[in-house]
Amino acid sequence: MVTEDVTASRRARAGGRDGRRGGRGRAASPAYITRRIPPYEMLTEEALARIEEHADRILEEVGFEIRGDQEAVDLFRRAGAQTKGFRIRPPRGLIRAIIQRSCPPSFVQHARNKERSVVIGGGAAVFAPAYGSPFVTDLDRGRRYGSIEDFRNFVKLAYASPWLHHSGGTVCEPVDIPVNKRHLDMVLAHMTLSDKAFMGSVTTAPRAADSIEMCRVLFGAEFVEENCVILGNVNTNSPLVLDGEASRVIRTYARANQAAVCVPFILGGAMGPVTTAGALAQCLAEAMMCVALTQLERPGAPAILGNFLSSMSLRSGAPTFGTPEPALAYMAIGQLARRLGVPLRCGGNLCASKIPDAQAAYESANSM
Amino acid sequence: MVTEDVTASRRARAGGRDGRRGGRGRAASPAYITRRIPPYEMLTEEALARIEEHADRILEEVGFEIRGDQEAVDLFRRAGAQTKGFRIRPPRGLIRAIIQRSCPPSFVQHARNKERSVVIGGGAAVFAPAYGSPFVTDLDRGRRYGSIEDFRNFVKLAYASPWLHHSGGTVCEPVDIPVNKRHLDMVLAHMTLSDKAFMGSVTTAPRAADSIEMCRVLFGAEFVEENCVILGNVNTNSPLVLDGEASRVIRTYARANQAAVCVPFILGGAMGPVTTAGALAQCLAEAMMCVALTQLERPGAPAILGNFLSSMSLRSGAPTFGTPEPALAYMAIGQLARRLGVPLRCGGNLCASKIPDAQAAYESANSM
Repeated sequence: MVTEDVTASRRARAGGRDGRRGGRGRAASPAYITRRIPPYEMLTEEALARIEEHADRILEEVGFEIRGDQEAVDLFRRAGAQTKGFRIRPPRGLIRAIIQRSCPPSFVQHARNKERSVVIGGGAAVFAPAYGSPFVTDLDRGRRYGSIEDFRNFVKLAYASPWLHHSGGTVCEPVDIPVNKRHLDMVLAHMTLSDKAFMGSVTTAPRAADSIEMCRVLFGAEFVEENCVILGNVNTNSPLVLDGEASRVIRTYARANQAAVCVPFILGGAMGPVTTAGALAQCLAEAMMCVALTQLERPGAPAILGNFLSSMSLRSGAPTFGTPEPALAYMAIGQLARRLGVPLRCGGNLCASKIPDAQAAYESANSM
Repeated sequence: MVTEDVTASRRARAGGRDGRRGGRGRAASPAYITRRIPPYEMLTEEALARIEEHADRILEEVGFEIRGDQEAVDLFRRAGAQTKGFRIRPPRGLIRAIIQRSCPPSFVQHARNKERSVVIGGGAAVFAPAYGSPFVTDLDRGRRYGSIEDFRNFVKLAYASPWLHHSGGTVCEPVDIPVNKRHLDMVLAHMTLSDKAFMGSVTTAPRAADSIEMCRVLFGAEFVEENCVILGNVNTNSPLVLDGEASRVIRTYARANQAAVCVPFILGGAMGPVTTAGALAQCLAEAMMCVALTQLERPGAPAILGNFLSSMSLRSGAPTFGTPEPALAYMAIGQLARRLGVPLRCGGNLCASKIPDAQAAYESANSM
């Protein structure tokens, strides 16, 4: 009896076994970060307006090509843009108006475990694992091409980490699986080895459709029609080109009410100007065109304005990550995304080091 | 003749040998950094006003002790503060008014080499070497107490670095020199092995006076009377106490028109509250009292509002540097210093690691 009393009293103090477990779980692993301090406003109103003005001018005067996707070009033509072949020249303000008319400023991406669902946009910050590494490294086997076993291990690691809120997408490239079915194994791993939100295939439109179809099996087709359960991360072919396959991928996600992440990949000096201000204007122009495409395909579909701005060694041509230029650019693109009212995806913990050393640590900290 | 022509033409293009050397020197080694992007405004107007209000309340209700320096206490009494023994209780707003009446918001610290003189305050940022390390480490001899040879080597290293704008002060503690004459060797090293601006002794008032007297030999007494050529970095005995020797050091620098750096050293949980907001209010109260003392001693003397806020492991009592708390506190104290209109000294590249590893790198990057 005494023992039982003590046990009961302990349980009561701790809120019971379930209460205790639940409480600890929530404390150790928040679903995402909610900012309680303001973002850094690096650029003035005037500077931001000039970058926006320049993005509009790039689109109106140079234009943006969606190469090989006549349907996408037609969507822009019917919305009021001039088109010639695959080149689209929207008048100033049109693209911003299309986006602001229907693109949600924030949305929930649902996870298999409801407590892991994440808010994307507004004051929420969601940390996701790295994306797209062709190589993996460990102490025992050194550097090698990634395999599906590595992929599954990375999914498990992200699942175990309380500081990664998302399962990510191509956490490494599993080259031991044939390309035509690789995406199925990748999405399956995210669905079965983690309960966090995840990303689907973007290599072709049918593979994007497969990823979404798998979500319909997991979440139910009706739920998927009404809620975001998967993201697709699409890069432009900077400067100012979107491949027709990529545009069909964007439209596939949008048509299914799922979120396309629209990411210009610009290394200053290679696919864009060396000046950060110029690269920002180009990045904004390209990303806005992709976000607008999602709204033309399905008004109200969730979408994310992305960016991957970095610098290049002008001597060797090598990409240089973790430098001051992208750190400054990310703060500016954050301001531009907030003004546009669209959620932002930023490249995060980047560095130029090839090993996990002190350089990797301080460059990554500066990038974050 | 042909050879001479080519040489002449090369010289002309490069602006002549002297022009070339001068141009490179300036480009590689700016005297200090001039901010061209705004500081991060973390706290709202309302939050800052609450911290200031709380600092005033601490001073009025609890008071601040200058232990053993009756002259300093009398200065505050004559300025309108209540005093009892060594305890000073200024009415709300008095200290801020004393500071804002005469303390310069920025000033020039002159260096032996005029091109190395630094602006302190306003939009200028001056990077100085670390201060006060008792130990030094190298690969050959490992960790040991610092010597004057180490001290001289650190002065030479800071002189050689284009990214350190200042020669610093106690770059390490040279324990092989007797304490009563150690400050003379330290100041001599800064004067002869570097041409950058430097700091003097603060361990006793006569040693502070010696440091200034050496400056009179180097710069001329008249120049020193009119211009800042040396800084003295003085810590309070937090919480809310200033040792009489420290206050006499502050007054010695101020009386000679030289700049006292007034630095509360607060580890949350040891010498102040564990909450960052509470520690900030205490820090502001202590630092303002020291800056006000400089103005009561000599109105218009340059002074710097300092801070060294960090956290403590509440389990072991060990100081923990490089944590998020001081990074947040430094941004807030920056805002408070700008509102007060006094130059700021912040602890910089801090970390909790004992070796130059990845942890040291990312914690230092975050602190900076």
